Parts: sequence; structure tokens; C-alpha cells
Amino acid sequence: MYKINENYQKLPGSYLFSTIAKKVSAFTTANPDKKIIRLGIGDVTQPLAPAVIEAMHQAVDEMGKAETFHGYAPDLGYEFLRKAIAEHDYKSRGCEISADEIFVSDGAKSDSANIQEIFGVENKIAVCDPVYPVYVDSNVMAGRTGEYNPKTETWSKVIYMPCTMENDFVPEFPKETPDMIYLCLPNNPTGTTITKSQLQEWVDYANKVGAIIIYDGAYEAYISEAEVAHSIYECDGAQTCAIELKSFSKNAGFTGVRLGYAVVPKALKCGEVSLHGMWARRHGTKFNGAPYIVQRAGEATYSPEGKAQLKEQVAYYMKNAATIKQGLKEAGYMVFGGVNAPYIWLKTPEKMTSWEFFDYLLEQANVVGTPGSGFGPSGEGYFRLTAFGSYENTLAALERIKKL
Amino acid sequence: MYKINENYQKLPGSYLFSTIAKKVSAFTTANPDKKIIRLGIGDVTQPLAPAVIEAMHQAVDEMGKAETFHGYAPDLGYEFLRKAIAEHDYKSRGCEISADEIFVSDGAKSDSANIQEIFGVENKIAVCDPVYPVYVDSNVMAGRTGEYNPKTETWSKVIYMPCTMENDFVPEFPKETPDMIYLCLPNNPTGTTITKSQLQEWVDYANKVGAIIIYDGAYEAYISEAEVAHSIYECDGAQTCAIELKSFSKNAGFTGVRLGYAVVPKALKCGEVSLHGMWARRHGTKFNGAPYIVQRAGEATYSPEGKAQLKEQVAYYMKNAATIKQGLKEAGYMVFGGVNAPYIWLKTPEKMTSWEFFDYLLEQANVVGTPGSGFGPSGEGYFRLTAFGSYENTLAALERIKKL
Repeated sequence: MYKINENYQKLPGSYLFSTIAKKVSAFTTANPDKKIIRLGIGDVTQPLAPAVIEAMHQAVDEMGKAETFHGYAPDLGYEFLRKAIAEHDYKSRGCEISADEIFVSDGAKSDSANIQEIFGVENKIAVCDPVYPVYVDSNVMAGRTGEYNPKTETWSKVIYMPCTMENDFVPEFPKETPDMIYLCLPNNPTGTTITKSQLQEWVDYANKVGAIIIYDGAYEAYISEAEVAHSIYECDGAQTCAIELKSFSKNAGFTGVRLGYAVVPKALKCGEVSLHGMWARRHGTKFNGAPYIVQRAGEATYSPEGKAQLKEQVAYYMKNAATIKQGLKEAGYMVFGGVNAPYIWLKTPEKMTSWEFFDYLLEQANVVGTPGSGFGPSGEGYFRLTAFGSYENTLAALERIKKL
Repeated sequence: MYKINENYQKLPGSYLFSTIAKKVSAFTTANPDKKIIRLGIGDVTQPLAPAVIEAMHQAVDEMGKAETFHGYAPDLGYEFLRKAIAEHDYKSRGCEISADEIFVSDGAKSDSANIQEIFGVENKIAVCDPVYPVYVDSNVMAGRTGEYNPKTETWSKVIYMPCTMENDFVPEFPKETPDMIYLCLPNNPTGTTITKSQLQEWVDYANKVGAIIIYDGAYEAYISEAEVAHSIYECDGAQTCAIELKSFSKNAGFTGVRLGYAVVPKALKCGEVSLHGMWARRHGTKFNGAPYIVQRAGEATYSPEGKAQLKEQVAYYMKNAATIKQGLKEAGYMVFGGVNAPYIWLKTPEKMTSWEFFDYLLEQANVVGTPGSGFGPSGEGYFRLTAFGSYENTLAALERIKKL
């Protein structure tokens, strides 16, 4: 009889968003007259930019004619897109990343879950706490995380780096030396980030101890402060210790379009082995490229029109973020994030747990957010609101919260 | 210092298509006046059907308006597509597969490479020989295949099931009992397949010995003979032993659009563990769904117009297949396949190796094909031609071959 991958049996249920859905559903059934406002989602709501729509229509037409039809994409992605990425996301910031160090993918979720496959199972991972759950879950599936302790909600072989108000949400070097360090900056869910000089310390640390940094920059487009790096490759020495993952989901609203990329510098080696070569092999064997139409859509985000339209879109969401942050402050909450990221992280009042505050907000203000404890044990006592709703709803939600 | 996944170091170079490219490039440089015809590719050349183009334009427009914008897709894929698949690919053939047993993906390559992740590394795999290389390569990466023997070009822990003219290309039950059996039917590269009653024997065998069948039906649309099953679920008992993978690449020309699906029946269990639940967890953690636009394109392939247009497209390629097969026969070759698949498999003449025949065909007829040995040791002495070129080129290539 065949065997299953037993690591899957260790995974605790993924109940965060399903529990939210159940609670909201029960509330609306009991209170059909109440209008719920959802500020819990991490999904965008604004439509695709006109420049992107135009590029996609054009690409669809190309696919309808034999002379301009496109079949299998090149393994790394189309050169037109990789060149645009290298130029606009790296060269323009003084980072020496070439087009053939970029691997086009269907999104940062896939990349951040898959990248661990090219590393040994004996490696020890370190994650910020709280953080996007995919990093840990994909390592559980691979058998890298040891045993789960349901009381502490932690894994025995995972190094947790708490990021709370006590340390200003800046992860500290762990006591035990990790092999693989996941950094999501600006961070989901806290909306906070670190400065370029703080990031430089992490790069130096990784090079010193022989660790690899998996750098998830999905929220880079929301950075507004000058001292925050837009890429880890702005730091000296990052090319020998870091893989950077980027997404078009949040800067261009591509959550339903699916596009991202991974940067694996050619200078990145484990002994004599090139990680670039390994990822190329993984990419070529287990993935078949993002659709031509989608890669053309990605290219359009770098055109002058595309850039201008996306700047407006980001500004729209960041106006929501400012509205939430200001409103919460006025209502007396301690709030974090929202300056370099579309997430606002609030401390729950009066020692409420994250779930208690969820119920309170749902019942009293009919507003839905996300309990911080769903992102890791150090998220307990915090709560996430997102800026991805409409401005009108955001404003209305804050009015309700202020009235509590 | 972090460690890499050492299994990658065991992989021999993937030289098949790069060696072909180098040889063709050298030949054209030396013979700039010769016009090369390529019948080696597995990629389609006909443009997308009008019904698909129309659906994509409409979906692009939806993405440009806030009211009809689509963000993250549901984990399993949109219901409109899963319902269409269940109805047209299963219910219409008497197979009881429901929409929620279907997982929409970005293609059969990804699915066939990823599906092994939910199984234990101690499982022993069996593959037809020759076959699509992704099955073995993805298992090498996972550490399931033992050591590589460069002389025999085989892996110590892989069970090879030779499919040659001697056994009429029908795989035989292996002496050693496998845990996971990969079947690609109709087969790439041989273009041959087995009857429904022969497939039933495999289903019975798998249920008896406790093996799982990974059934890759990527070429199903090319089946022309009545006794060949279009789905493994036409066989009794397949729901308790088989996962079926399907692709839109070859029936609808989606190689650059990227869409496929996996069927994991709810009745499929390893002891008490539901494989459906495991694949759902893997899908939800390591993948974020095919683009909305692409899922609408997939739906359009099931409309009356779409079906009629795709029938024509398949007929176009199968006319090429018939042309190749007939032409090769007239030229005195032994040929196989080409009836239920777009691939023609020929026995090389005069005990030439696959690569010797490659050189001969390139130099004497300026026609490019694929050496059979690239698909496994039992492919040695065979050669693959594909029906995916234009009719004019196919005809011209065969005229040249006949003149040799």
C-alpha cells in the first residue's frame, strides 16, 4: 500500500478565514438589517488600470492570429517583461540585477511556498511573528518544522522572532542560528517595516552566519518613507545571501491576474552550487510559465501611463490607510503600520484577546477585521484592518468605530 | 551554513532540447540556403479559437470595472468552470465526478510534477518507458528515485515498464509491486494507447496491490477509436485508486494560456486519510489559482461554438498526423501512434540510434524531429515526429523524407 506524506497530518486546521466567515454569516442571519463593512480582506477592490486592460486586449488579439500566436513561454519568462523589471525595479534604484536573474512566476504566494524545495530538510527556519502563514505551512509540508505544540501554537524546530510594540516591530537576531530567514517587509500583517540600515544588519548577519534570506517584498509599492529600502539588493552583500520575491498583486491589483517574480542572483552560491541553476531547474520541471497575456499585462505596469495610473491606485488605498489610522487614533486606539503598507495593526483595548475584539467590533460596529492571533502567537492582543476597501466604506467604518 | 536539497545534484543535465537546438543552429549556420522544417516540437501552432478569444476579451473588460472586477479566485477554481468540466468531460461520459472533486490549475505539467508532494518519499514509482520526463524528474527532486546509473540511464528505485513494438506498446504489470503508477495515455512520446478493457486491468491491479495511479490524460481530445477510454473514471473502481490530470494545452491550444485540472475523487483514501483533503490543502497553500480571464477562456471551450471550433482544430492536427504516418509508410518506415494522439513514433532504419537518425534527417531532409532516447532507455532506436506544424510544412517535410 502506498504511503501519504505524513507531514500533512501535522498541520493544524487553517481556520482563520473560515471562522471569520462563519461568525459573519451567523451575525448577518441574526441581524439582517445591519450593513456589514469588511476591512478584513487582503484582496484588492479597484479595477485594473486602463493601460493594463489595453495591453491585455492587444495580447488577446495576438493569440487569435497564427502569425502572432504565442505557445509555451520561455522558462524564465518573456524577455520583454524581465528587462522591464530589471530596468524599473532594480537599475533605477542602483541595484545590479540583470534580466536573466529574474524568474517570472504566477505570484509571490507560489514562490514563497515553493522556494524552500531547493533547500535541505535539515535546515532550520526563522520567521517573524506574526507573519503571513504560508512560510511556515509550506515548511511543515516539507518536514522541516518538527512537532506542533497546540498550547503555544508553535513548531519545535521553527525559530520565532517576535515583532511587537515592545521591540518597535523590529525583529532581533535569534539566539539560535537559523539557516533560512523569512523576512516580509513591509510586513503582513503588522504593516510595519524596518529601515535600510536595519536591513543592512540582517544582510551582514546572514552573510556572517551562512544563512539565506527569503525576502518577500510584496508590499514594496506602498513604501513612503525615504529611509526604507525598496529592494534588499540596495544593501551591500545581499546578492550572496538573499532571494527576493515580488508580486504584482498589490501594486497593480493583480490578485486575480496572477503574476510575480523571484530574483535569484548568480552570485548566490551554497559552496560551489549555484542556487540560480537549482531554481531554474525547479522552474523548468514543475512550472510552465505565466500566460503570455498576463506577462504583457505586467509589462504595461512599467509604461509611463501604467506607472502613473498605478501610482494613483496606491495613493487611493493609502488614503484609506491614513483615514483608518487617524480615525483609530481619535478613538483612542494604539495603532501601528499604515505608512509603508496598506495594513493597520491595532492593539486591542482593555486586554481583550484578538477574537474577543473581533466579536466586539462585529457586534457593536458591524465592521469585520482580522484577529492578529491568526498570524502567529505574538499577534495575540492585536488586530488587523486593511486599506483595500472603498474610500466610502472605510470612512463609514471609522465613523462607527469612533462612536463606540 | 544552510544546506541545499542534495537530490537536485543527482539530476543529470536536461540536454535533449538544448542539444537539438545546438545541432540545428550549427547546421543552419553551415547551410544558410537550406530551409529547415521542424516537426520536433510538442507546442501547438494554431491560434486560439474565436469563441475563446471572445470570452477573454469580455473577461478583460470585466477586470477593468469595479463592479465586475475579480480578485483572488476560489481555492479550487471558479464554479462556472468546474461545473462545465464535470458536465462535459465526465457526466456526458457516464462518469460520476462532481464539480467539487475538480481542482483547476495552471496546467498538467505543474500538476503532474506537484502531485507527488502529497505522497511519502518511501513510495516506489513505476513509469512507462519511454515517457514524458517530468514524472521521473519531479520524483528525483523529492528524493524518491535512488541513484542514477549513467550507463543504463535509469534510477535504482524507479520501476520502468518498457513500451516497445515488442509488446505493442502496452505496459505490463511489473514484477516488483509499485506504490505509485504514472500512466500517460494516449502516450507522449509514442502516440500509442491502450483499450478501455486494458485500462480496466490496471485499475483492478492498483486496487488489488494498494497502488495509486496518476493518470495523465493530456492528449485525450485526440482519441479517435471507440474502444479507448476518455477518462480513467470510465473504469469500475477507478475512484478508489486514481487521480486524473487534464490539460487545455493540446485540445484548445492553451500552451501559452496555461490551464489544466486535477480530479481527486472524494472516495480516494489512504486508510482514513482523504487525498482530496490533502490536495486541497496543498493547492490552498502553494498555489493561488489560474487567472479569472483564463478560467473564462476555459469555460468557452465547452460552449457549442467553442466545441465546434476546437473539433476543427484537432482535426487539422490529426490530418497532419495521418499525412506523416502515410508518408512514412510509403517511404518504408515502421510507424506507430498518430491515431489517438498527435505524435508519430517511428522505428529508426538500419539499426541507427535515435541520435544518428536525428542527424541523418537533419542533414539529408532538413527536417527536425525528436530522438526517442530522450524519453527513456526504451526509446532508443525510435524517433518522434509531431503533428503540430502547419499542413503545408508537414506535407513538404514528408515529400523530402520520401525522396531520401
